[in-house]
Amino acid sequence: MQDRIYLDNNATTKVDPLVENMMEPYFCKHYGNPNSLHKFGTETHPIITQALDKLYEGIHANNEDDIIITSCATESNNWVLKSMYFDAYLKHGKDHIITTEVEHPAVHATCEFLESVGMRVTYLPINEHGTIAASQVAEAITDKTALVSVMWANNETGLIFPIEEIGQVCKQRGVLFHSDGVQAIGKIPVDVQKAQVDFLSFSAHKFHGPKGVGGLYIRSGVDLTPLLHGGEHMRGRRSGTLNVPYIIGMGEAMKLAQQNLDYEREVVGGLRDKLEDALLEIKDVSVIGDRIKRVPNTTLVSVRGIEGEAMLWDLNRANIAASTGSACASEDLKANPVMVAIGADVELAHTAVRFSLSRFNTIQEIDRTIEVFKKAVKRLRNISSSYGLN
Amino acid sequence: MQDRIYLDNNATTKVDPLVENMMEPYFCKHYGNPNSLHKFGTETHPIITQALDKLYEGIHANNEDDIIITSCATESNNWVLKSMYFDAYLKHGKDHIITTEVEHPAVHATCEFLESVGMRVTYLPINEHGTIAASQVAEAITDKTALVSVMWANNETGLIFPIEEIGQVCKQRGVLFHSDGVQAIGKIPVDVQKAQVDFLSFSAHKFHGPKGVGGLYIRSGVDLTPLLHGGEHMRGRRSGTLNVPYIIGMGEAMKLAQQNLDYEREVVGGLRDKLEDALLEIKDVSVIGDRIKRVPNTTLVSVRGIEGEAMLWDLNRANIAASTGSACASEDLKANPVMVAIGADVELAHTAVRFSLSRFNTIQEIDRTIEVFKKAVKRLRNISSSYGLN
Ligand SMILES: Cc1ncc(COP(=O)(O)O)c(C=O)c1O
Ligand SMILES: Cc1ncc(COP(=O)(O)O)c(C=O)c1O
Repeated sequence: MQDRIYLDNNATTKVDPLVENMMEPYFCKHYGNPNSLHKFGTETHPIITQALDKLYEGIHANNEDDIIITSCATESNNWVLKSMYFDAYLKHGKDHIITTEVEHPAVHATCEFLESVGMRVTYLPINEHGTIAASQVAEAITDKTALVSVMWANNETGLIFPIEEIGQVCKQRGVLFHSDGVQAIGKIPVDVQKAQVDFLSFSAHKFHGPKGVGGLYIRSGVDLTPLLHGGEHMRGRRSGTLNVPYIIGMGEAMKLAQQNLDYEREVVGGLRDKLEDALLEIKDVSVIGDRIKRVPNTTLVSVRGIEGEAMLWDLNRANIAASTGSACASEDLKANPVMVAIGADVELAHTAVRFSLSRFNTIQEIDRTIEVFKKAVKRLRNISSSYGLN
Repeated sequence: MQDRIYLDNNATTKVDPLVENMMEPYFCKHYGNPNSLHKFGTETHPIITQALDKLYEGIHANNEDDIIITSCATESNNWVLKSMYFDAYLKHGKDHIITTEVEHPAVHATCEFLESVGMRVTYLPINEHGTIAASQVAEAITDKTALVSVMWANNETGLIFPIEEIGQVCKQRGVLFHSDGVQAIGKIPVDVQKAQVDFLSFSAHKFHGPKGVGGLYIRSGVDLTPLLHGGEHMRGRRSGTLNVPYIIGMGEAMKLAQQNLDYEREVVGGLRDKLEDALLEIKDVSVIGDRIKRVPNTTLVSVRGIEGEAMLWDLNRANIAASTGSACASEDLKANPVMVAIGADVELAHTAVRFSLSRFNTIQEIDRTIEVFKKAVKRLRNISSSYGLN
């Protein structure tokens, strides 16, 4: 274990031991159902309230806004999008959703489903910078548009989208605005007021909280048909017995994420830059996207002549964990879709390796990764059929 | 803590310390995303497979069937019911669902939602035994019926429904059959083959697993539009990063529940009977439902002249946790709906107190509960306005 190096923090993160400590008493000791009227139930209320407060602070929500606990960002994304079917399409004939072609499958696949039941979706193409411009959104909006859904930062490239500008466009045009904030929380400041988003999705396990709990921010006064109907939990917006330990854990993880934002930018960002600079010294290595427009922890590296999978294999043998893209797609070994969108040729699009760091990484780990990577490039280019031929 | 007595196990249960132990290494140590290709991801596969095996064994599923991990039974119930909108109603014009009037809100409120978007729901009235007869289902089925949804055991009374007979009716008539098995798992044997259910919902926190994880059994070959679209987790049926610790915990909790079924029937059932017998000695106390037709841990007791809430208050002051019904409804102090359905007069329906035991209860706890209850009856009847007047 000691020697393992984890550089796949955009896929998931280690639970911060401080977070685990806070959750622990709520499994076997304070196990009441918060909805129960007796002490076992009510004794959990203060700490749940504290956890929610940390979430509100973390994303700068107003007291009047709602933050509803869900089981993950996938649920939050499905919820917002599918509610458009019932709230906008069936009730008001608004059948149109605008999103981008590089959203996470939790948005993309849900949009495809909505198309299958009669809605229309515009998938905005990304530009040469790997993002979209607010003007593209403005042009796509019609009087049938119910929702704009654009991610805050991309999971593969780390590139940050112009959320504030898009928020302004949506506000002016009276269209609801959802952002999948999964890859932004804990990496850069996220302010739902400034960005004027109506909905924000997040998932605790991307910022050192547990897997299987997330949230949906809903601006005050915005209606949304529940995805989970039932026993009136969470003010009737999302039913299901509260996952007390994970709510507490997510709150604490959010607090720690905020406290570490400077560290993330300076130290984690510094380690990422060091890694990137060293790899860029290798011949025919490139990096996707402006460093300054990315979250601090992510680099997507392309090594001409070497399949991303092959590189991962060599890294894995040396106990270094990285990724070719999002873990969700990792079972079908496709070309990196963001790179294809940016315009890489297909061969290059197969070469992408993503390193995503966290505050738990050390400079020693980065040094070792550079060393292993360089050796792997040598080895793999020696046996590569495509490299050297063109 | 020592002195607290928890008799509200139908609302939620304590996580078994053995379960917590199994989950613990998967927060801060083995925290990989199972979908990742590197060791951090793949090292979690064997134990996840073992956990799933325990679930399959626990409900006697076939290898070809699916058990899909969800965030709770509320999600499982919403999933099955709402898929009928897309799979049966939109595609085949089958607009009819049959259920009972005493389902959990996760079924009931979802059915009401489906009515609001055009489907028709038959809420079968329960009979004087507190359940329904399979013949009622048979009579309600039409060629427009997409689904029958009947709970395996009721959360308030503990009464067991004739699931095998209903399964047979549904099979004969070619109608899909869903059962909310939340209150049956760990209390009585649950065999999805014998019962011929197509779908079974369950929630780990009702059988000493963690809150916020559950499952949906889906019979082999049965289609179901996902409730959570996305990254192809769980064979594309339910997306969202896997909650590794809780899946492991739910598997172990299911195994322990199976191993303890005899203990549940004999020892927990014995404690329940002892409690019930003692309370029945009090004048004008009655119990809802045949003991032999109930799960072993539950008793719903009615004390003429005493509001259920008042009794709970006295019990709570003595550090004894019980309930008036399901925790979900406990914030609006309504008359117990099952009792109303059984035909209790409204005054009596306000007097119900539910005790629900678990394998962690002791005979000393039951003795103390009897003592406290008897004192409370005396005290409360002395100050009761209604008792003694009629
Ligand atoms: C941008 C983005 N959105 C949504 C998700 C889904 O998160 P979860 O799997 O926790 O639901 C992920 C994680 O894979 C992600 O990177
Ligand atoms: C019969 C029944 N169904 C469903 C549920 C919902 O379970 P969960 O809150 O874990 O989703 C409960 C628990 O309250 C229940 O008793």
